[in-house]
Amino acid sequence: MKLLDCTLRDGGYYTNWDFDQELVDQYILAMNDLPVDYIEVGYRSKPMKNYLGEYFYCPLYLLRRIREKSTKKLTIILNEKDVRAEDVPGLLGPLDGLIDLIRIAVDPKNIGRAIQLAEAIKSAGFPVAFNVMYMSSWKDTPEFIEELVNMDGLATYFYMVDSYGGVYPKDVAETIALVRSKTHVPLGFHGHNNLELGLINTLTALEHGVEIVDATITGMGRGAGNLKTELLLTALSAQEKVSVNYNSLSKAVEPFAKMQKDYEWGTNLPYMVSGANSLPQKDVMSWMGKNRYGLDTIVNALHNQKNNISDNVKLPELDVTGGTSKVLIVGGGTSVQNNHEGLIQLISENDDIAVIFSSSRNFSLLSDHSKRSYLCLIGNEGNKLLDRSADLKNYEGTFIFPPYPREMGTIIPEEVKDRSYELRRIGITDKYFDSPLAVSLQLADDLGASEIFLIGFDGYGSGTNPVQFALAKENQYILDFCRTMGKSVSALAPTAYSNLPVRSLYALLS
Amino acid sequence: MKLLDCTLRDGGYYTNWDFDQELVDQYILAMNDLPVDYIEVGYRSKPMKNYLGEYFYCPLYLLRRIREKSTKKLTIILNEKDVRAEDVPGLLGPLDGLIDLIRIAVDPKNIGRAIQLAEAIKSAGFPVAFNVMYMSSWKDTPEFIEELVNMDGLATYFYMVDSYGGVYPKDVAETIALVRSKTHVPLGFHGHNNLELGLINTLTALEHGVEIVDATITGMGRGAGNLKTELLLTALSAQEKVSVNYNSLSKAVEPFAKMQKDYEWGTNLPYMVSGANSLPQKDVMSWMGKNRYGLDTIVNALHNQKNNISDNVKLPELDVTGGTSKVLIVGGGTSVQNNHEGLIQLISENDDIAVIFSSSRNFSLLSDHSKRSYLCLIGNEGNKLLDRSADLKNYEGTFIFPPYPREMGTIIPEEVKDRSYELRRIGITDKYFDSPLAVSLQLADDLGASEIFLIGFDGYGSGTNPVQFALAKENQYILDFCRTMGKSVSALAPTAYSNLPVRSLYALLS
Repeated sequence: MKLLDCTLRDGGYYTNWDFDQELVDQYILAMNDLPVDYIEVGYRSKPMKNYLGEYFYCPLYLLRRIREKSTKKLTIILNEKDVRAEDVPGLLGPLDGLIDLIRIAVDPKNIGRAIQLAEAIKSAGFPVAFNVMYMSSWKDTPEFIEELVNMDGLATYFYMVDSYGGVYPKDVAETIALVRSKTHVPLGFHGHNNLELGLINTLTALEHGVEIVDATITGMGRGAGNLKTELLLTALSAQEKVSVNYNSLSKAVEPFAKMQKDYEWGTNLPYMVSGANSLPQKDVMSWMGKNRYGLDTIVNALHNQKNNISDNVKLPELDVTGGTSKVLIVGGGTSVQNNHEGLIQLISENDDIAVIFSSSRNFSLLSDHSKRSYLCLIGNEGNKLLDRSADLKNYEGTFIFPPYPREMGTIIPEEVKDRSYELRRIGITDKYFDSPLAVSLQLADDLGASEIFLIGFDGYGSGTNPVQFALAKENQYILDFCRTMGKSVSALAPTAYSNLPVRSLYALLS
Repeated sequence: MKLLDCTLRDGGYYTNWDFDQELVDQYILAMNDLPVDYIEVGYRSKPMKNYLGEYFYCPLYLLRRIREKSTKKLTIILNEKDVRAEDVPGLLGPLDGLIDLIRIAVDPKNIGRAIQLAEAIKSAGFPVAFNVMYMSSWKDTPEFIEELVNMDGLATYFYMVDSYGGVYPKDVAETIALVRSKTHVPLGFHGHNNLELGLINTLTALEHGVEIVDATITGMGRGAGNLKTELLLTALSAQEKVSVNYNSLSKAVEPFAKMQKDYEWGTNLPYMVSGANSLPQKDVMSWMGKNRYGLDTIVNALHNQKNNISDNVKLPELDVTGGTSKVLIVGGGTSVQNNHEGLIQLISENDDIAVIFSSSRNFSLLSDHSKRSYLCLIGNEGNKLLDRSADLKNYEGTFIFPPYPREMGTIIPEEVKDRSYELRRIGITDKYFDSPLAVSLQLADDLGASEIFLIGFDGYGSGTNPVQFALAKENQYILDFCRTMGKSVSALAPTAYSNLPVRSLYALLS
């Protein structure tokens, strides 16, 4: 039995593959004292379009530093979809003497191409392992199972990956038997933890002859994450199958446990639903990351995905006849409260202004019933509104939804249905269509506004809270895109967004 | 198959059985829409010495309010060790028409007494269930298994409780067979989650004929907690065994998930170790709660418990010959930095003063090498010291440990061993012997000090952070106890502790 810890590689999904060197040093040194055979450091990759950090590329200085400190065998992994056989010399050539095993993460439908890649890796002098995804679906793809005869002699390990985190121990045993019917290759298992079955599935795999298993400290890894290294070691130690230095194990766990409080990896209701129903958790991770959707919205969206429902409600399109020359878009930031009196005066002094609330956060502060007013209901906002029924009763405006079909489905309170409309399309940005800012700017554009004022979009200090930072990046993108389209958008209070002209609210007042 | 949700009852271990009414209402209404059969509200109990909240006593108005809102069967549980048959009319009489099932939590060694209690409950007109602890040890107690013949006709359900959270699916199956060899009573299972085996053990129990199982929302419950209700429902729903309204399930989960961020229930390395080795998690919960011990200290203490080692190091006792009339005890609070200059003057102006650092937090700020100085190393402080080796090199004082044997074992850096001593006994308080304040006060007393000044014990605002509040309560207790023994203890800076005379530091200076 061998253990592979891939905390840095799989945990990078949460940190964009950047880690503090101090944390990595503490982890590597602690691992030296633990019964773990392989450490997977990260990916090797050709340059990608989006920003991805140090451990996604694993430059040589990084691998040399870890090689010096670690007494373990080291591995890196390649994403099969991004790497071809001809890339091998460039990507792996320099790793001679540094890396002991190259793994290939591969979709079973590309297994033929992966075998060619593996042959090139072997020719370059590295032992190679396959991490093949979606093990729960293999029984339905006999053509993939047939390919497994090619594993003998080629692969050092053939891993079964429970990509959805939805397999049970009996499924593990059945899949092992299925694979064993075609090949004698040493087997591996990589278990996810959506249903908290990572430990029992891994122990079951070991009982059925699997020779190597993966785990990560605190389970850090994409979405719901993995079997926890500390749980596997504790369980195996109690069974006297390994000997564990708990001081070192604690030292490995402590810095990741601290990070987990900020990043909150691990399973939760949406990940459970995706695991139990074999739905990809990539969407869940990005939905959770934005903090825009409640648990119920996410579970509903997964339910819609599972049943191939594109959306549950079609609304009438908003009639924008008449239009308006000025629009005030009200965000959720504190500059709304701080400039409250001035904003009221601005609204009352401009007959032709419409007010768009991008969320329900501040909508009760600026209700002037003589002016057009719109409240955008994105994601979970409809539910939040229900908790403020007194404010809702006094509000006389119109409710706006993004265009149909809405990816997350539609949450619409019964009380507002007869005043609810959807936009026809979003043209002022080319992504982030479900953003409250995008919907508000589109509505302003649909109304024909020539001047658009923003308040309550104060930006966030970057680097502090990853959720706020993700939202800030999204808003910056929308604002930049909108500017390239020649829209006149300005902020009425100081803001951390760049390229957004700031005009003092008070310069607009008499 | 029936499901019992005992979130409020078992979650009370974290909140001292107090819950916001709004949270409870949201939970009860959400449960009405879910495939759960029983809701366990809390305990019924005679008055206890320590404070325990509303849901530990479940007064009638509370049960009536929940009875009105809930469409489910309701249960309460009794702690067998605190309740006798003669208490039944007083405790349960008023519950007629409100409660549908009375459960008894019982240690198997008291099963005979519990059967008498159950008979009294049945005579009072209530169906009764047994929740019998320590199922992992039943195979070694045949006399308990013999008693199970009394269950038929008496118990509505007989629950097997995985108290340590350490049983595996095969153990569940074996224990069911063992119980079935003696009785036909309907069986129940209550699974803990130390090893993340709550789901698989519960599903295994259901497969082997168990008729009712427990779970709690977010797993909230003592120590590592329980099988999560949302996980069980999601798994059963994917298998089409129940139909789940995910909106309602999300509503039940959301407020508890929020609380969990503060209280941090769920498994972690110490709970894994206690589960895997069948060690009680009560100690872990109180050790974790104080934030005084690192993971490694706790794991070491569990290891010592398992191997019946009382402590790993015996130190020489401190020689207090000579003594001193005044002592300054330096805590970890900010008043040390804020009054830094004054404290230096105080020390230099008093030839007969000794300085005791109750922790390593501020020890480098007040090193006057002409004065006696002591640094208390409780719990994890020894490890923390190693991270500050520059400060340590300059420190010329003596290191003080609590009396032998230390419950948590001893962490002592090699560098300080030849300057380390332990106290003979703690007499200035009757509990909290491992508190830095208690050790410091005892040392002051041992030195014969007639005046004891405190700085850096600033107290904490109560009600904000439960960890800080627990520490503040502990310090208040020690200070009160010390005062009853006639010790002259005063604070040199304003403090939130009561009955602690405050003397201005600056009134003591020339």
